[in-house]
Order: sequence, then C-alpha cells, then structure tokens
Amino acid sequence: MARIKLTIEYDGTDYVGWQVQPNGVSVQQQVESALQQLLGSPVRVHSSGRTDAGVHALGMVCHLDTQRDLPLSAWRDGLNRFLPIAIAVRQAEFAADDFHARYSAKGKRYRYTLLRDDVRSPLQRRTSWQVRQSLDLQLMTLAAQTFVGVHDFAAFRTSGCAAETTQREVFAVEMIEEGRLLHIDISGSGFLKNMVRMMVGTLVEVGRGKRPPEDVAKLLKNDRQIKPALTAPAQGLCLLEVWY
Amino acid sequence: MARIKLTIEYDGTDYVGWQVQPNGVSVQQQVESALQQLLGSPVRVHSSGRTDAGVHALGMVCHLDTQRDLPLSAWRDGLNRFLPIAIAVRQAEFAADDFHARYSAKGKRYRYTLLRDDVRSPLQRRTSWQVRQSLDLQLMTLAAQTFVGVHDFAAFRTSGCAAETTQREVFAVEMIEEGRLLHIDISGSGFLKNMVRMMVGTLVEVGRGKRPPEDVAKLLKNDRQIKPALTAPAQGLCLLEVWY
Repeated sequence: MARIKLTIEYDGTDYVGWQVQPNGVSVQQQVESALQQLLGSPVRVHSSGRTDAGVHALGMVCHLDTQRDLPLSAWRDGLNRFLPIAIAVRQAEFAADDFHARYSAKGKRYRYTLLRDDVRSPLQRRTSWQVRQSLDLQLMTLAAQTFVGVHDFAAFRTSGCAAETTQREVFAVEMIEEGRLLHIDISGSGFLKNMVRMMVGTLVEVGRGKRPPEDVAKLLKNDRQIKPALTAPAQGLCLLEVWY
Repeated sequence: MARIKLTIEYDGTDYVGWQVQPNGVSVQQQVESALQQLLGSPVRVHSSGRTDAGVHALGMVCHLDTQRDLPLSAWRDGLNRFLPIAIAVRQAEFAADDFHARYSAKGKRYRYTLLRDDVRSPLQRRTSWQVRQSLDLQLMTLAAQTFVGVHDFAAFRTSGCAAETTQREVFAVEMIEEGRLLHIDISGSGFLKNMVRMMVGTLVEVGRGKRPPEDVAKLLKNDRQIKPALTAPAQGLCLLEVWY
C-alpha cells in the first residue's frame, strides 16, 4: 500500500466548498471523481481541513491510500486530465504510512485579499472583497498584532463549528499592500470554522473606524459586551499552504 | 452637448472582444446597452482601439456625446448598475469637445502575463499563458530591447489588420517577475492588430531557446527568411492604460 499526498489548487467560485455537501458540487467530490476515473475504483481522500463555499486554495493538502503502483506523474498529470479547469493537482508525493493530511499538519497560512476601491473590479471580483471606505492601516496593524499568540478564539467561530477546543495559536498576521489590493496573510497552528474571515472582518471594522483596535483583545477574552466579529465574505480568502 | 470620457475595466474571458461582432457578445455592445438603459435612447461609444476576444482591460478608454446633463457619478456608478459583473466603469470625466478616445491617444501600455509552471493554474487560468519550459530571462531581455524605438512592425501584425502604415514606436518593454508569474509590460505610441501578442510570442520562443534574440531585429527588417512571429494566446493580455 502507498500513501499519496496531493497539494491542490482551486478556484472555489463555483463550488460549495471542499467537503462533499448535499446542496451542490464540492471540490472533494471532483477530486474523488477524477481519482475514480484514473483508477477505475472509488477512493476516499482525507484533507487538511475544509474550506467554505467560494473560498480558494493554492495549497490544499489531502492524502489517500492506494494499492496501485503508479508513478508520481500519474498522480499529478494523470489526475489533472480528469479534473475540471478550476481544480489542479500542483504536486504529488509519496508520504509515510503515518502521515495524515489533517492530524500531521503543523500549521496553515491563509491570504485574505481586500480591494480598496470605490468601484467594483471585474478582474478582481472572484478573489477579493471590495471595501469602499478608506482603511487606517496603522490601526489595523495594531489590532492585528493582538491576534498573535495563543488565545481562546471562541468569539471567532461560527455556529456549526465542530471543534472541541477553541484555543489556537496565531503565528503571524501580515499586511501587504499591492496597489489597490491589501493582502492580509494569517498563519497559525489551526483555525476554527470561519476564524480567518471573522478576524479579517474585525480588522476591516477597525480600519474603517467602526470599532477601536482594543476590541480584539476584548473579543479574545470573550467579553460579551462587545459587538461580535464581522465575517468577511468567502471570495477574498485563499488557503496558501499547509505545512508538516 | 457634453463629451464624456469613460475608463473601463473588463474581464474579457466571455466576450468576443471590444468591438461589436456578429458572432457573439462584445464589451462595446454591453457598454452601449447599459448606456441605453441609463439614458433611454441609443448611444454610440468611440474607443481608443479594439481588443481581441478574451483580452482584458484595466483601462480601456472610450468617449461618447450626450445632450443629457448628468453628474459624473451617474456616468460611473449609474452605468455600473446596468453593466454585467465582468465590466465596470472605473472613471468618468468631462472631456473637451475635440477630445477623441482614438485620435487623441498619445500612447498605450499593455501587460502580458506568463505563468511559468509545468502544472496548469486554476486561479491564474483566465489571465495568463502557461509556459512549461524554463525561460532564459537574459536572452528575453536582450531581444525585448531590440523592440524599443521606431520600427516597421509589419511582421508583427496578423491578416485583417486595417492599419495603413506599419511604423510604430515602442517606448519600453519591461519584464517583471512575480513568483511563478512573469509580466511583460509593453508601452508604445500605438499597436497593430495582434502586435503585442506577436511580440510576446517571439520573446517566449527566444526564452525557450527556440530562436536567437537576433531574430527580432531581422523580423523588424522584414527578413522573409526568418520564421514568422508566434502569436501568444489572448487570455494573458491586458490593456493597462491609454494616455492623452
């Protein structure tokens, strides 16, 4: 038996998210369908986590077990021939028997992209969130640094989050300006459901002057007096990488 | 009467190009249709030029004449409400009576984006040309500089080009690396049909080692012994700006 690790890029615009759902086509379903076409028999893949409907990935990781003795090129280029244009395997590797895409993960890095413009952008519309108001980057940076470290992120998850514990470590929050775009790169040990989008939504409210940067510390202390975090829309989010 | 100058961004993926065509929906048609909805009567727009099917624009410029006394916000935000998501007016301005989007243009800048990767990219597929072979940037830079200046670009236009003269000035050809992407920014006084795509196709052949950099000078001298220029595909091209 061989364990295969796949690194997958996808444009999430037209999918209901990574995980198989009853209400539409998921990325996982397309990957498993391509595997079935390649191998002639059904295969289940195990991912590093889920992404929501409309969220993108440059480096989603999943693994699968197989009895088939195929070269890595078949797992990458062969699979890509059966995948739709919005999904591609970027890398295929042989993994150790005890490698698990989810349980072996040491950290993940997400990028959230804001479009700072008062006009909508046809070319950026699939991969950014348009924010019309000007953003105070100094206040946002101040608030962003409050997230770094080990905290209870209970105020930064949505209902339906199945995680048993809400303590997570955020390694870094970086803001990168690129013309009218502002990228917010967030890395951490692991993330709760909607956690990145709620962190970004809160940072944008700070940047707009709608709440003080001190709100982040209060939310991390579960202060119920504070307005709950705003969830940024899905299309601005991209899972950049998972490391092991 | 007022002359209005519009700067337009579009994702050209699903259009037959800027100009109205019998075989499908064009960007111009969508802009004129939105104007008709805004104004209640048909209006013709005059653009700085055409873009081919699948080519994008960040700063296409066109103008129109109107008897209607509307504020600039109506020409921008009002029009955007009637335009499809793949097209947006970025800026509306009042122009002088003798301003003409095409004849007053002093220069244009295009960006062509290459994806240097042996795997296709779902997230870049609409806006880049995937080149699997590694590219020699030194050779490409050498060839690129040969384009700069006033030359006869007759070897860099396709059939159907209606231009009467083929002499054009290229102001600059710049190569900008951005991870797996390579942008080639080309500015000039004006461009023949497919000229940018044929310049880029030729540069890529040089980068791949498929032809020597000296071929550019020979093509600019209309040397018929030389293999004709290769046309790079449309989706990698974007009209960045037109200046006046």
